[in-house]
Amino acid sequence: MFKITGRIDKIRIGKLSTMHGVINTPFFLPIATKGAVKQLSPEELRELGAEAILGNTYHLWLRPGEKLVKYAGGLQKFMNWNGPMLTDSGGYQVFSLAGRRGDKDSVKLSEKGVEFRDPADGKKYFMTPEKSIEIQLALGSDIIMVLDECPPYPCSREYAKKSLERKTRWAERCLKYFDKAQRAKRKAKNKSAKLKTEKNNRPLLFGIVQGSVYKDLRQESTKQLLALGFDGYAIGGVAVGEPREKMKKILEWVLPLLPEDRPRYLMGLGRPEEIVFAVARGIDMFDCVIPTRNARHGSLFVWKNGDSISTMEIESPRLFYQTINITNAKYKKDFKTIDLNCDCYTCRNYTRAYLRHLFAVGEPLAGRLATIHNLKFYQDLMKNLRK
Amino acid sequence: MFKITGRIDKIRIGKLSTMHGVINTPFFLPIATKGAVKQLSPEELRELGAEAILGNTYHLWLRPGEKLVKYAGGLQKFMNWNGPMLTDSGGYQVFSLAGRRGDKDSVKLSEKGVEFRDPADGKKYFMTPEKSIEIQLALGSDIIMVLDECPPYPCSREYAKKSLERKTRWAERCLKYFDKAQRAKRKAKNKSAKLKTEKNNRPLLFGIVQGSVYKDLRQESTKQLLALGFDGYAIGGVAVGEPREKMKKILEWVLPLLPEDRPRYLMGLGRPEEIVFAVARGIDMFDCVIPTRNARHGSLFVWKNGDSISTMEIESPRLFYQTINITNAKYKKDFKTIDLNCDCYTCRNYTRAYLRHLFAVGEPLAGRLATIHNLKFYQDLMKNLRK
Repeated sequence: MFKITGRIDKIRIGKLSTMHGVINTPFFLPIATKGAVKQLSPEELRELGAEAILGNTYHLWLRPGEKLVKYAGGLQKFMNWNGPMLTDSGGYQVFSLAGRRGDKDSVKLSEKGVEFRDPADGKKYFMTPEKSIEIQLALGSDIIMVLDECPPYPCSREYAKKSLERKTRWAERCLKYFDKAQRAKRKAKNKSAKLKTEKNNRPLLFGIVQGSVYKDLRQESTKQLLALGFDGYAIGGVAVGEPREKMKKILEWVLPLLPEDRPRYLMGLGRPEEIVFAVARGIDMFDCVIPTRNARHGSLFVWKNGDSISTMEIESPRLFYQTINITNAKYKKDFKTIDLNCDCYTCRNYTRAYLRHLFAVGEPLAGRLATIHNLKFYQDLMKNLRK
Repeated sequence: MFKITGRIDKIRIGKLSTMHGVINTPFFLPIATKGAVKQLSPEELRELGAEAILGNTYHLWLRPGEKLVKYAGGLQKFMNWNGPMLTDSGGYQVFSLAGRRGDKDSVKLSEKGVEFRDPADGKKYFMTPEKSIEIQLALGSDIIMVLDECPPYPCSREYAKKSLERKTRWAERCLKYFDKAQRAKRKAKNKSAKLKTEKNNRPLLFGIVQGSVYKDLRQESTKQLLALGFDGYAIGGVAVGEPREKMKKILEWVLPLLPEDRPRYLMGLGRPEEIVFAVARGIDMFDCVIPTRNARHGSLFVWKNGDSISTMEIESPRLFYQTINITNAKYKKDFKTIDLNCDCYTCRNYTRAYLRHLFAVGEPLAGRLATIHNLKFYQDLMKNLRK
């Protein structure tokens, strides 16, 4: 086991427009891809203990467009979420969604950026590092990610190296554009308002460590990003189909190099035991579709009977929870609470039998109640890990 | 114009298990067909001002089954609704849904009852007047409807007459079964608990006036039901495709015959102006899919600017509201509140542009927010009509 790095316990968000300027770490980001966490209201997210949410640059760029969101006062105001928001760069979706059409020519990657077509209407778009930052600033993001091209797994060493070099150049362009935009903003503000300190008056910009499953590339990527200097560091290109053991290796290679006073974000992960593993190694931030997507299919996380996170075993963390599929016939007459150790809205008010019934007859409330429970499980997990 | 009959202002629900034993009239029943108002939580219904909800006997009988619901403590407890509930008899759905298969033999009507197959799995069921009451009692209904066979429109005088005669015999069988069940219950209670007065300790049973669009049949039906004696009277067989003018005629024929001290329920209606019309003639209760179904398609009710219900014209009530389709492109940049005269959760927190965006990208929150608004419009309409 490698050395556990030091921890930060909070991330301060500098934007004064945000009511809740402090994010407690470690934290998990519920995913509001298109400007809403599926089926949930912002009040429900707040009640669950969500510290921040994740908006998707690619989706919001295409619909409703970043200009409209900016005009609305930022995505938080548009969607009535009065907390911090992180936006991904859109790079992942450009390749995974726009590339989905089967038409290889639909995504054209060059040094300058990436051209793609909207799968919905065929309209052409051109994403560049500068454009990604511009959109994220317009969306009003509190934590902005550099543009990223995520190579698939498996990926040859040669391709990974070439891709990495370009990504470092892109990260530098993102940083330059971001700094320029902040300088322009400060200059404009200076004229009309009292000057704030720089750090209290701007969003954070994160770099993304890439390098596929190659140790030297991952370490090279980390060092290059450190040389550029970011507010936080994400580890990308995991959860793209590689064996989960590789993820552990990647953390082992990268984390010791990252500074202890900057937030560390493991993108796209993961299962509860993976989160426990990663937090123990120093990761502060997570996002993942697992709790929400699984919920919509009736798969629920349940704390193991009598166990609490304090007694869970870090090295074999599967022990502390189980998943149940509530659509299963065996829950038809099960009038117990979904999870005795959970105090979410769903567990306080409904039985397993009722939730199973809602799934069985296709009532949309089913997905909502299940999503509330699974997100609460994740938020409770993070809360327990803070202790 | 015919004479406006006297009004009751409350319906007292006798069941002690119900926390809210009084329903203010006139009122509108949100439809919880399968044990949930689509997408909404019971707390949201309460906040909207819903006095009572409607559960569907046919659907709940098939899934999850009345025995399960009874074991859960009644539908209200199962679905966490702490207010009164009305159940329809299931008759309408037996013909409209089970009959849908195209296979005419799938529904067999006889004097004894009606045999049908579950369209989902082909399983045979036999509905009788007694069975309908038994199911509704098991569901824990506060207002129970007699079993009803609803003839389609148009319907010959001959068929309507024959159908009516059977329905009156069925209504009598419902009443007998209901009385017997109440006597058995009282007898059982007498042994173990303090005796309550009869009226305070049982659900209400409503008869349903039928007779299609024929004046003499409608009036005959009314008199026959009055002779049997019910707690309230519903007018059925409207909103089945007949011209809306016919509905007005039916009210004109039937309402003067109904007693002023018993609730009057117009089943399955209607548009806001129809509700205003019917309330002015003495109707106390309504249910309709319009507000919820329209909401899911983005069609929203909006009070006319500056108008209030107090200034609306009863004879041309369309004036007091309009419908807007929020999915329309013209709302893309409309950052106004959906309805300035509405204080529902949706109007308090979201813009037209945001709601339009949610519909455009297919976010399920769209239907939820729209449903909340439309139901609030209907609840506000009823509240205003009480004044």
